[in-house]
Parts: sequence; C-alpha cells; structure tokens
Amino acid sequence: MSTPTAAICLIGDELLSGRTRDINVQHIAGFLGPYGIPVEEVRIVPDVQARIVEAVNALRERYTYVFTTGGIGPTHDDITADAIAAAFGVGIGKHPDVMAMLQARYDEIGTEFTEARQRMARIPDGASLIENPVSGAPGFQTGNVFTLAGVPSIVQGMLQDIGHRLERGVPVRSLTVRSAGLREGDVAEKLSRLNEELEGVSLGSYPWFRSVTDHGVALIARSTDEAKLREAGEKLVALVSGVGRESEVIEGEAS
Amino acid sequence: MSTPTAAICLIGDELLSGRTRDINVQHIAGFLGPYGIPVEEVRIVPDVQARIVEAVNALRERYTYVFTTGGIGPTHDDITADAIAAAFGVGIGKHPDVMAMLQARYDEIGTEFTEARQRMARIPDGASLIENPVSGAPGFQTGNVFTLAGVPSIVQGMLQDIGHRLERGVPVRSLTVRSAGLREGDVAEKLSRLNEELEGVSLGSYPWFRSVTDHGVALIARSTDEAKLREAGEKLVALVSGVGRESEVIEGEAS
Repeated sequence: MSTPTAAICLIGDELLSGRTRDINVQHIAGFLGPYGIPVEEVRIVPDVQARIVEAVNALRERYTYVFTTGGIGPTHDDITADAIAAAFGVGIGKHPDVMAMLQARYDEIGTEFTEARQRMARIPDGASLIENPVSGAPGFQTGNVFTLAGVPSIVQGMLQDIGHRLERGVPVRSLTVRSAGLREGDVAEKLSRLNEELEGVSLGSYPWFRSVTDHGVALIARSTDEAKLREAGEKLVALVSGVGRESEVIEGEAS
Repeated sequence: MSTPTAAICLIGDELLSGRTRDINVQHIAGFLGPYGIPVEEVRIVPDVQARIVEAVNALRERYTYVFTTGGIGPTHDDITADAIAAAFGVGIGKHPDVMAMLQARYDEIGTEFTEARQRMARIPDGASLIENPVSGAPGFQTGNVFTLAGVPSIVQGMLQDIGHRLERGVPVRSLTVRSAGLREGDVAEKLSRLNEELEGVSLGSYPWFRSVTDHGVALIARSTDEAKLREAGEKLVALVSGVGRESEVIEGEAS
C-alpha cells in the first residue's frame, strides 16, 4: 500500500513579515496524523498570484493532498480563489449555492450582502465546497487541493468537512522521552547505534535550551508498530537513565 | 537600488509533524526588517538530505540571502552541514578552529569531547563561521546561505554575528489599526479604493476570530515613506471610525 502524503501552502504577507505566528501547520498536521497522512513539505508564500500558482502547482504534483490557508476573505488582498483557478487553468465565478447561503446569512443578521462580501462566493469552476461552521463562507476542494481560510478557528472548523474525503494510510505512533538536564552529546553515539539497531522505528533528538538551568533533550521514537514502539521506549529510558537529571515518558502522541 | 531579499528554510521532521511550533521565522523576519530585507518565501523540509539540497538550491538562486535553521547538532539526524556541502558541491571536514574551540569548551566543563560532539565541528569547505554565544558550536555562512541552529535562543544569538555581513535595503515601516468588532466586509470596498488611491503604501487586512464576542480586524499600512504612512494611518482610522466597536493604533512596527 502506498502512503498518502500531504503538503501545506500558507498564503499571506503577514506570515512572512513575522507579524503573525502560524499555528495552522500544527492544526492540520495534528488532524492528518490519525489518518496516517504525513505532512512532508510546507511553503509560505506572499499574497502574489504568480507565487501562489507556482507553489500550488509544484506541491499538488508531488503530494497526495495539498492544503492552502489564507486569502479567501472579502478584501482586495484575498486572491487565493483566483490563484487556485489559475493554477488549475479553470474559470471562476460566483457559486449560486454559496450566494444563496451567504445572502440568507446576512439577511438573518441584518447586514448588507455587499459586492465585497460576494467575493467570498467566488469558487473555481468544478470545485466542491468545504463547510465553514464558524463564519459561513466556505472553503473548497479543487482536485487534490483543499483551500481553507487563514483564521485558525475557521481552519479547525473546515477540517471537520475534510476527513471523509481522505484516503487513509497507517498512522505513525510516537513515544517521547523528555530528559531535563540531558545534553545531546551525552547520548548521541548510543542513540545513533540504537537507531540502526531498531527496525521499523525512527529515532529523533530534539534539544531545548531556554536557559542555563532549563535545558534538556526530547528523544522521540516513531513507528507504525505499537510493539516496536514500546520496545524502543524502554531502550530510550534505559539510555537516558542516570545521565539526564530527570525524565518523563509521554506515550501515544500522533506526532 | 535593488532591494535585497531573503528566504528561510526550516529543517526538521518535528516542525512538519506539528510537534514543534516554529518561532524562528518571526525572529529572523523581525531581525531582517530594520535592514530593509523582506522575507519572501519560507519552506519547511524534512531531515532528508535530498530534500534539503533541493530546497536550498532553489532558494539561494532566487533570493539574495537564505537562512536555514536546524539539524546542526551532534546526533544522527543532524545532517544539515552535509546537505549544505552537497548543495554547493564542496567537501566537508572538521574545521580546526572549531575543533580547538569546542575542545577547550568541553575541557573547561569537564565533559568528554566525544566523536558525536566532534560532528558539530564539521563545516563545509570555504564556509565562514557564525558565532554561537549561547552554546558554543557555531553556524556557518556558505555563499549567500546562513546555516543556523534550530533552538530559538541559539538562533537569536547567532543572528548577532550576521548583520555586519548584510547588504541593506530601505526598511518598510508599518502602522496597524486594530478594530475590535469590525468585520472585513464592513470596510472591504473602501479599503480597496484606498489601497488604489494611496501611492507607495500597501494596505493589508487581517481578521481575527477567537469567539463570537472576541473578533475584529487589523488593518495594516506598509510603506518605506514615513509621511505617506502617517497619511494612510489617518485615513484608516477615519475608515473604521463608527464601524468597529473600538480601535487602537499601533505605530512603527517593522513588520
């Protein structure tokens, strides 16, 4: 069985300038984990159509699924829908179902459904809609590309309408041994040998260093096989035992 | 004068899996802002040499500067130095100055300078070193590519040894009008017209939506010209006046 894969394309000048710190990668990767779909690449591109088209076309050819975030609101800098249509070489227009749904929504709250708000009904030809339970205006799926909002709470809402469209892989389980006071160099040789010795398990080492007194290493084992993961966990605990100041084991994360 | 540009390549499975939320993009973009060097693209790639080589080569050809983070520690999954050497088609070996510096450092703290720790002295041929005031093991510059650690405090330390190497552009100043209760659709038409009307200023609209009671829009003007920025700010304040519940103006951010 081939493993489905995913890429994420974050769209927005505010992410590149550092004004906004992205959280959508974590939400999307965390959502895909239980489906057994690893995120293999992320790109952040500016609000420039040619750059969005280029990134989306590169990613959709290479990965099973692509998720874009941002740029589908009502303002002049919201150009993602047009960019996706251009990437796929299809037309774009106001989707009648979305027009009717948004009209009803704005009628209900007594707000004018302006020309700008109608921009949010622009959907590439042939795309299917992705429900937005938070603020109404939908995302959409074009081929293997899912176009979502940028606001994190809306992204999380839209993800609820995506799972049923996905092919499943085998979820990777992980086990983390966090060891305060440990330095990577203390265990690097042993860890490298263990990584070669354990079949079907991959080991990673992630140091943290917040201050001279608050530092350590998180050693992570990842595997699709629960028994192998458990064995790796025991060996990691043995490996750090007596080296780091203290350690804790966190089981079963999907990351 | 041509504007220097930058791209960032974040390296690490832990970022793609969602285990770690990146903060280095913000630190690097914030550092480059005052130099007038915009970040125009970010890629996140896994700990796989071919993928790192591909991304770094694509980015270094396109942008004035490339910053990589992650993968230069002592463990088996730290493969960035080798990947950079491969990307540039140069050799790699233990740098004598780094070997001497690390040896002295480990002697001082009474820790063995193991073979694994010596991996941190592996520097691509011809690279210049980037000082690491936090934990010793340096980053390095190869052509227009700066290779930094992944741990945020170390990245921030290393950036202090980079500014003097950079060509400067004209810094972009920004002014933010945050308006609670405002919805993008309330001002989208006027904002679009204002964006066309104001020369040398670019306007962006960034909604937040945390709950039904906590939502609003941040309108941001960006310009290299202080007077034009001030004029744009006044017009933005007038634009949201009486529409949003309340607004505040934040001046002079470099983002």
